[in-house]
Parts: sequence; structure tokens; C-alpha cells
Amino acid sequence: MSEQQWWRELGQQLRVDSIRAADAAATKPGNDHLIFSKGHASPLLYALYKAAGAVSDDELVSFRKLGSRLEGHPTPEIPWVDVATGSLGQGLPCAVGVALAGKRLDRVPFRVWVLCGDSEMAEGSIWEAFDHASHEGLDNLVAIIDVNRLGQRGETMLGWDTAAYVRRAQAFGWRAVEIDGHDVEEIDRAYEQALAGDGRPVAIIARTVKGKGVSAVENRNGFHGKPLADPEAAIRELGGRRDLTVRPSAPTHGAAPHRFATAKAPAASWEVGDKVATRRAFGAALAALAAADGRIVALDGEVGNSTYTELFADAHPQRYFEMYIAEQQLVATAVGFQVRGWVPFAATFAAFMSRAYDFIRMAAVSRADIRLVGSHCGVSIGQDGPSQMGLEDIAALRAVHGSTVLYPSCANQTAKLVAAMVDRPGVSYLRTTRAATPVLYPADEEFPIGGSRVVRCSGRDDVTLVAAGITLHEALAAADELADQGVTARVVDLYSIKPIDKQTLIDAAEATGVIVTVEDHHPEGGIGDAVLEVFADTSSRPRIGTLAVRVMPTSGTPAELLGQAGIDRTQIAQTVRTLLVARSTSV
Amino acid sequence: MSEQQWWRELGQQLRVDSIRAADAAATKPGNDHLIFSKGHASPLLYALYKAAGAVSDDELVSFRKLGSRLEGHPTPEIPWVDVATGSLGQGLPCAVGVALAGKRLDRVPFRVWVLCGDSEMAEGSIWEAFDHASHEGLDNLVAIIDVNRLGQRGETMLGWDTAAYVRRAQAFGWRAVEIDGHDVEEIDRAYEQALAGDGRPVAIIARTVKGKGVSAVENRNGFHGKPLADPEAAIRELGGRRDLTVRPSAPTHGAAPHRFATAKAPAASWEVGDKVATRRAFGAALAALAAADGRIVALDGEVGNSTYTELFADAHPQRYFEMYIAEQQLVATAVGFQVRGWVPFAATFAAFMSRAYDFIRMAAVSRADIRLVGSHCGVSIGQDGPSQMGLEDIAALRAVHGSTVLYPSCANQTAKLVAAMVDRPGVSYLRTTRAATPVLYPADEEFPIGGSRVVRCSGRDDVTLVAAGITLHEALAAADELADQGVTARVVDLYSIKPIDKQTLIDAAEATGVIVTVEDHHPEGGIGDAVLEVFADTSSRPRIGTLAVRVMPTSGTPAELLGQAGIDRTQIAQTVRTLLVARSTSV
Repeated sequence: MSEQQWWRELGQQLRVDSIRAADAAATKPGNDHLIFSKGHASPLLYALYKAAGAVSDDELVSFRKLGSRLEGHPTPEIPWVDVATGSLGQGLPCAVGVALAGKRLDRVPFRVWVLCGDSEMAEGSIWEAFDHASHEGLDNLVAIIDVNRLGQRGETMLGWDTAAYVRRAQAFGWRAVEIDGHDVEEIDRAYEQALAGDGRPVAIIARTVKGKGVSAVENRNGFHGKPLADPEAAIRELGGRRDLTVRPSAPTHGAAPHRFATAKAPAASWEVGDKVATRRAFGAALAALAAADGRIVALDGEVGNSTYTELFADAHPQRYFEMYIAEQQLVATAVGFQVRGWVPFAATFAAFMSRAYDFIRMAAVSRADIRLVGSHCGVSIGQDGPSQMGLEDIAALRAVHGSTVLYPSCANQTAKLVAAMVDRPGVSYLRTTRAATPVLYPADEEFPIGGSRVVRCSGRDDVTLVAAGITLHEALAAADELADQGVTARVVDLYSIKPIDKQTLIDAAEATGVIVTVEDHHPEGGIGDAVLEVFADTSSRPRIGTLAVRVMPTSGTPAELLGQAGIDRTQIAQTVRTLLVARSTSV
Repeated sequence: MSEQQWWRELGQQLRVDSIRAADAAATKPGNDHLIFSKGHASPLLYALYKAAGAVSDDELVSFRKLGSRLEGHPTPEIPWVDVATGSLGQGLPCAVGVALAGKRLDRVPFRVWVLCGDSEMAEGSIWEAFDHASHEGLDNLVAIIDVNRLGQRGETMLGWDTAAYVRRAQAFGWRAVEIDGHDVEEIDRAYEQALAGDGRPVAIIARTVKGKGVSAVENRNGFHGKPLADPEAAIRELGGRRDLTVRPSAPTHGAAPHRFATAKAPAASWEVGDKVATRRAFGAALAALAAADGRIVALDGEVGNSTYTELFADAHPQRYFEMYIAEQQLVATAVGFQVRGWVPFAATFAAFMSRAYDFIRMAAVSRADIRLVGSHCGVSIGQDGPSQMGLEDIAALRAVHGSTVLYPSCANQTAKLVAAMVDRPGVSYLRTTRAATPVLYPADEEFPIGGSRVVRCSGRDDVTLVAAGITLHEALAAADELADQGVTARVVDLYSIKPIDKQTLIDAAEATGVIVTVEDHHPEGGIGDAVLEVFADTSSRPRIGTLAVRVMPTSGTPAELLGQAGIDRTQIAQTVRTLLVARSTSV
């Protein structure tokens, strides 16, 4: 076969007309997906687009220039790019999500092709992807491992030991095909084999030579990511300028994606005064919402009996995905699901969202709409100790571009916020509490994202307490204690930490002049900082006390640990008294 | 063999007298290490301490109570615990660090024994550990995988398919021994085999039954982490109360740990006005420091030619560790090294610290002294695009308990901060810049952690600019532009973001009344928030403008992207003018 012919056939097999479709999954649901897990091979990806006629010569040379969609690493600013890559080891896990959607949600026989680098095989997330892909029988997933031996600064751990890659892929339940990555006939045969699905995902281990055919760089270290010194000489050496055009075939199957049956269903609701953990309210609310909205799916990191996604799993087993103790794959699968238009909610302990922080950061670069739910936040979880306590999650999630951070204190409020997350763009995060706390608000009250709620307010408040989640209940108790002492506290429920309700805070500052924020979270980047940002440049300049977890917590009862951290009712009231004295002294 | 005998021999093999020594590595460097990667098995660990006589009956029943060192999950508050566990998949990677120190740094033939759960085998970090342990030939490492089939809420992915675990371990280059985990003779033989080092780490795959011997819970789902309903019945069923005492033997070898030869060496320094990237200054400074301090070691995530740890690797190859593209193992190895008293510096791109965020969070719980260095921060890296830009790292690292966050703008300053990190307790983080920037300060100036530097100050400043790293250079340029327009700007170099120099900021606020912070980072949790925290409750209430990256960046030149993000000299000057007008209007 000539190389030209081979390119043509490759195009047909890959069905790369998928790359002609904007919002491919929506408009052409049968198209295959192509993901470059080695995002730094973007010049190759963009050259494929050029060969398919999707990108012009002029656009191609805008590579890495301001204003070009052809960025250094691919992002979904290009309509045929499903997910942003460039942080290695992420493309394959996201592809597992896309392929899993194909098998169990869309139920359409598209394939997902992934180009992996050999350096990124050192990332643990790659093996999470291998593990899940075989566990789920994803024979619609093909990973091509480009084993060129050379990483950014030298040889990889395994070098050209392709047999080791084969052993590992097989041990993780994949079919492995070893080829010479420069032999078009072998490539051809490998792709053909890959098409014959036998229930297993396929890894094509391709031995390649970096810079093949250009003697100045071929198989030499030190040229990673660097332009050629003499590109014209390289073109000559490669046989002169070529202008390939590939006309790939369309998918042969025309199946419409599966849609889940829905029915009108009441929202979850509770009686004011009942004691319900917001984590349980989340699970119940999501299960109820999903009855009426077939796009909603749920995933969990093997703690569904703690986060209460188990309520969803019981109600909608076909739309529930057990991701085991693999938080990177948990978030990556959510990203993959939304590529196909599904509405994923991914839950684990708030503390363990940190395990997937690079995936969450990259989800924002992917312009992904994903919903994350972190339970067991803060010291108030009690006896299990600091390893299980989410104490950095607000800071981490607030710092993600375009994110939404929500933190309810009441079951009915939780239900409203979960509903609001369904059509929320970007990365949205709900922080839930382990302990059962009293339901504060009637089920018919609204809690829009970006709002807040003044829970207690008199004509003449002396101080404003700003809290959310577990600390709102402490703040209310502190307000009771202060009232007995003749101090009137306004209490603001800051259930939406990002975006934040500036006006309510400014009004409170103007009314009281003193604000105390209380959060079950470390002081940096949390509720205190979010409130301080509001007053950075306002004409009202309240005095702000920020109570937060400034210790390394231990085991203990929830009440003991709130006390240890200085965020319980007693210490809130004490802080208020101190601040009010300071103000009267300074005035 | 009787069970009693077997326990005795197990004790001898494990050399558990290591658990009698406070600061074991320092005082008894030949002792073995025992790490419970499945930290939730803490009751078993504490029972071992009891059997060894290190913990009394009274202390044992303080389990999970406030004030007890026997927390829900083990932490180094107990002197025989090397690292905190409880976030699954972390104990084994940290153990790889301890074992690697034994092989290549201490050069003492201790062994590291790790108890892993089967649920945590789903964590990618476990496979990073497997990968590195075989690559480094760590036959001093033994992992016991407790395959009890049941996770927190149900069966694991592999259930009792012990053969699959064996295949995976072998494919990753380990020796694998499959046993019945309840057969003491098989356990005995497995430990004996594990002692016969053949260059490979050893995985003992132990098939076990959860709750074995207690019919109320044996092999039944739904009892994870729950107390027994009838503990007395369970004790009866297990053969009655027992009080085992184990007297383990001491290590037979008495080798003193290896120490690297050192010599007086000059610190790295540069001429004021030279253009040097702070990332390069870090590499040079660390190499120079390590010549005189044999405790210092360096690790990198396969980007040493970008972070400039390559300068260290060239100078001190025996103390340099290539961790490839595996950031979780990178940080875990650093944690393991400091268990043995070494002073690790671990470097990768600032963006990719997010990959190891759970390990960084847990390092704080481990009371670990580790030094992290993140290069390529912010949009100023230019063309590579957002996947490579550290834009959340200040927020994430500031939120870690007891952390230090440093961000130099000058090569000489970088050298001083790197030196200060050597004996800094806790997690310390240095943020370095890709671009070469002018050296601002002479080599003999001091930059203590917690300090700042007023770079420009007149008798009557109109405004204060607070910046660090690349934005300090932009702020200085903006001050020049403003000076031409008759506006005098004080410029503060906030090289120590945490801890922060409150007094200098308060003085500046009192002198100027207006502060503008500028950072190459997203607005949440960064320099702006750190400065706002200073003024939360002070009597001086400056107006504060916070310039930060509020867009999703793209590719472009560094200058273009600073402009796109609104943090370049032009927009700093413009912001100052707007704020000064606003102030004069409001006054």
C-alpha cells in the first residue's frame, strides 16, 4: 500500500469527519471521537484538521499566536476538541468517560481513539483509566501509545521496552497489539484488529523514533518542544512538501442516542425543624430531580453510603456509576460524560476532591460543565480525624476559573441548590455536611445561585455574623446567647460563596459596621477571604473578624472539635464581644 | 507452629522494636519501618503497639477521643508512625520514598513493610508507587495487600481475583506471592521469601475474609467502620480474651547511615541588572547550598530542564531523583525522604502541583518538612497556554495548614529564600517564573521569610503597589509611568505571601490610603486575598484594588498575555489613576 493510500484508509477507519462537526456529539451523535492525550502533539492534531479540510493553511500558521484557536495545547475552543489536554495523563481518563457514555448512556456504537505519549504512562491516572476501561468492558476505546522513548528531558522509565507496556496493558485487562509505529501496514492491521470488539479495550503499543526522518533531530535527546534549526532541510529530507487531503467516510450506523424515560416527579422536601444532614438531602434531591430529567447521571468514589449518592443509585441504577477509590477517574468520567451532553454529578468526600484537583483545574480549561459534591467537610465530621476533613476545598474550588461554590445549611436549601446546578455552566461545587442539622427554611423558598439569606435581622443590629453550612447553626446559637446579653446580631447565610451576594453584605456592613465570618475551613481562601474581597474597594469599611480552623485538628466529637478550632457558638459570641469593645474603644 | 509462636516469629521478622523508638530513623537508623497504607485499620496498628508494650490498655481505649494520640487514622503524633494515612493510596507511595532513602541515601539495610487495602489498589498513585519501586530496584520494600474483597460500600472492582493482583504486580516488575491471609504458615513462608532480596520489591497478595471468625459480620457487607453490636460475643467466638506480648529482636546490622561529603562552597549570586529567570536561580542556588549541606536532596517530575533542578542533578547526581511524570509519587517520595531526616526539594511546574494536592494536604497532617518548587507560574509563561500555567497554586498552597508560600522576583532574592527553606518546618512552597527578569537586589541583602521589601518609597506616596514575581517588574514599570504623570507610587515586593509582613503593609496603607495588588494568578485565594486579610480588622482601612487573572488565558507572547489578563504595567497605572480619582471624589 502506498503511504497516500494508507492515509486515506486511516481516515476512513478513524471516521475523522467527526472533526468537521461543531458540537459533534449533539449534531452527529454517531461520529467517533479523537482525543490527543499527549496534548503537546497539537501540531499533529492541527495538521490532521488541515488534511481533513477543517483548517486552512493560513489558520495553521497562527499556531500559538494570540487570538488563534490553535493554542499550544488543544482546547475545546476548537469545536472538534472534546477536552483540553496538556496536563499529561488526562486525555485517556476523559476518553474512558466518553466511551462509557457510549456504552451505557448513549448506547451508540461510536469509537473513541486516543493518542497517548509514553511519558504520561507514568501518571497513576493512566492506570485508573486502564482499570476502569476493562472493568466496564469498553471495547469502543482504542489507545495508541506512542513509545518514542524520549520524554521532555531524557529517556522514560521503560524506554523502548514495549513488551513491558504490553504486559501492563494485558494485566489491566486490555487487548494489546505491539507494532512498529512507522510501518503503515502494521498500523493498518492494528486498527483493523482494534475494530473487532471482543469486550476489551485495545492498546496499540507503537514503537516509534522521535523526529523520524530528520537526521538533525531523529532519536536525539534535547529537541523536545523546540523548533527545527533548518525546517527547509527537514522538509527536503522528508521528500519535499506534501499537501494531503483525507476524505473520511461517515459512520455507517445511524442509531439515535438512547434517552432515559422520565416522569413528573415531586422535588425532595422536608419539614422545618426536622434534623437532616445536607449530604443526605443532596442524595435525595438528586434522585428526585433525575426522575424528571433524564440527562442527570451520578458518579461516586466508592463512598456512596457516605455522600448519599446511594439514594440515586437505588432510584436510577442505569444512570449511576461506581468509580471506586479513584477520584481522578471520577472527575475525568464526569468530564467525558458532559462531552456527550449528559449532566454529571460526581461525589466523594470534600477532602478527596484534592486528589483530582488537576482534573478540576483542567475541566475549566475544557469549558466542561461538571457538578462536584464534597461531603464530610470540616472538623465537624468528628472522630475520623484530619485526613478525612475537607479544610482546603473552598479555597481550591474558588480558585478555579468560572467556578461556582455552594454550601447549604438546610435540607430544603440543598435541594434548591442541587436543582440550580443542573443547568449551571462551568465547574460547580456543592459542599455538604456530615451531621444532621435542623431544617431551617420551608420547602417553597428560593435560593438562587449568587444569593444569600438574612436569617435574623432587627431594626438595629450591633453586628453581622456571616456563616454557611454547619457554622450557620453555630452562628444562630451564638446570636441567641448574645441576645441574652443585650447584643443584637444580624445573621447572614452565605450559601453561595462564589458568586457572592455583595449587596446583602454591603447593606449589613453599613447597618452594623462589624462583621464576623465563621467557617469550618482553613482561613486562607475560604469564606472570610470571599467576604473581604467584597469590601476591598467599597466605601463601607466594616471591621471584619474571621473565625476559621487555624489548628491542625485531631479526633474528637463534632462539638469538641468545633470548640478546638474556635468556631463554635461560645467562641463566636466571645469574638463579637471583643470586636464590639474594640470598636467602642477606637471610636 | 502454634499461633503464639507464629506471632513471636512475625515480630522478629518485622523487627517491630522500631515502634519503640521515638524519632526512630534518627535514634535507631537500622530499624525497619511499618506503614499502614490502609489507615482505617488503625485499631490493628494500635493493637500491635499494645502487643509490643508501647501503648497501655488505658491508652488503647482512648481511641478516637479528644486529646488521645490514637486518632481515627494514624498520624506522626504517635512517634512510631512515619506518615499520616487515611487518604487511601498514599502510604505505599510514601513508603517508596522511605525505601529509596534506605537504598540510595542512608544506604542502611532496613526494610519497609506496608499494609495496603484492596480498595486502595484502584488509586493511580498505588501504580505510580509500583512503577517507581521496581524501577529503583527496591527489594527492601514489602507490600502486603489485604484482599478482603469488601470496600466501604460493597465489593471492589477485582473482588477476590487475587490472580489479577498478582499479574498486575508482576507486570509492574514486582515479585508477587499469593497466600491465604488466614494461614499462619503461609504468611510465615511469604515473609521468609520476602526477606530474600532479589532486586525486586515484593507484594504479598493475601486473600482474607473481612471480619473473619465473628459470624455476625464475617464476609458481610455493610459493617465497614462500624462497632460490633455485641463485642463480648465476638470475643467469645474468637476464643476468649488474649493478651499477647511480642518481644521482637533488634536489627542485626549496625551500619551507620551514609552521609555525603561536603565542603565550604559559595552561595549562588548574580550582578544587579543581569537578566536571570528565578527558576534558574533556584536550580543554581540549590546546587550551591547542597555542596555545603549533605542533607539536601532534589527530585523532579521529569521537567528538570524547565525547573532547573538539572543544575542540581549535574552537581550532585547521587542526591538527585528523577520521578518522571508522576507528581503524586514526586511529593510522596519527598515525604518519605524527610521521614529519614533528609531535606528534600521537589520541583515541577506550578500547575502540576495540583496533581499532588491531596499528598501536599496530607504532608501537613504528617507534620512533614518538605519543600516544593513550582516553576512556570501564571500567564507570563506565554505560548504554551493555560494547561501549563500555575494560576491556582498560591490559593491551594496557602490553604495548607502551617505552610509557607514564597514568590521571588529576583535571582539573588531567590537564593536567599531557597536557603531559608532548608530548615523551614512544614510544607514550604517556592513559586518561580519562566521569564528572565532583571536582578533587582545585591547578593548581600537579606530576605527573611515573613518579610517584604519596600522597593520604592518617597516622603509622600500617593498609592502603594503590592506585587511579587513577574508582576513586581510590571509594577515598577507602572510606577515609572505614573511618576511621569506626577503620581508617586510606593512599591512593595511581597516575596513572602505566607507568612505575610503585616506591619509594612499597614504602614503603607497609613501613608497612602490606596493599595493596588497585582498578581499573575486567579483572584481567589492569592496575593490580593492575603493582603485583604491583613486589613480585616485593623484601624487603617485602605481602599484596595486587586488586579489578577480574571480571564481564561490563551496562547500568546508573555507581554500579550499579561495585557490580556489586565495585569501589565499599562493597566496597573490605569487602575491607580481610576482609584485615585474615586478617592478624591468620595473625599
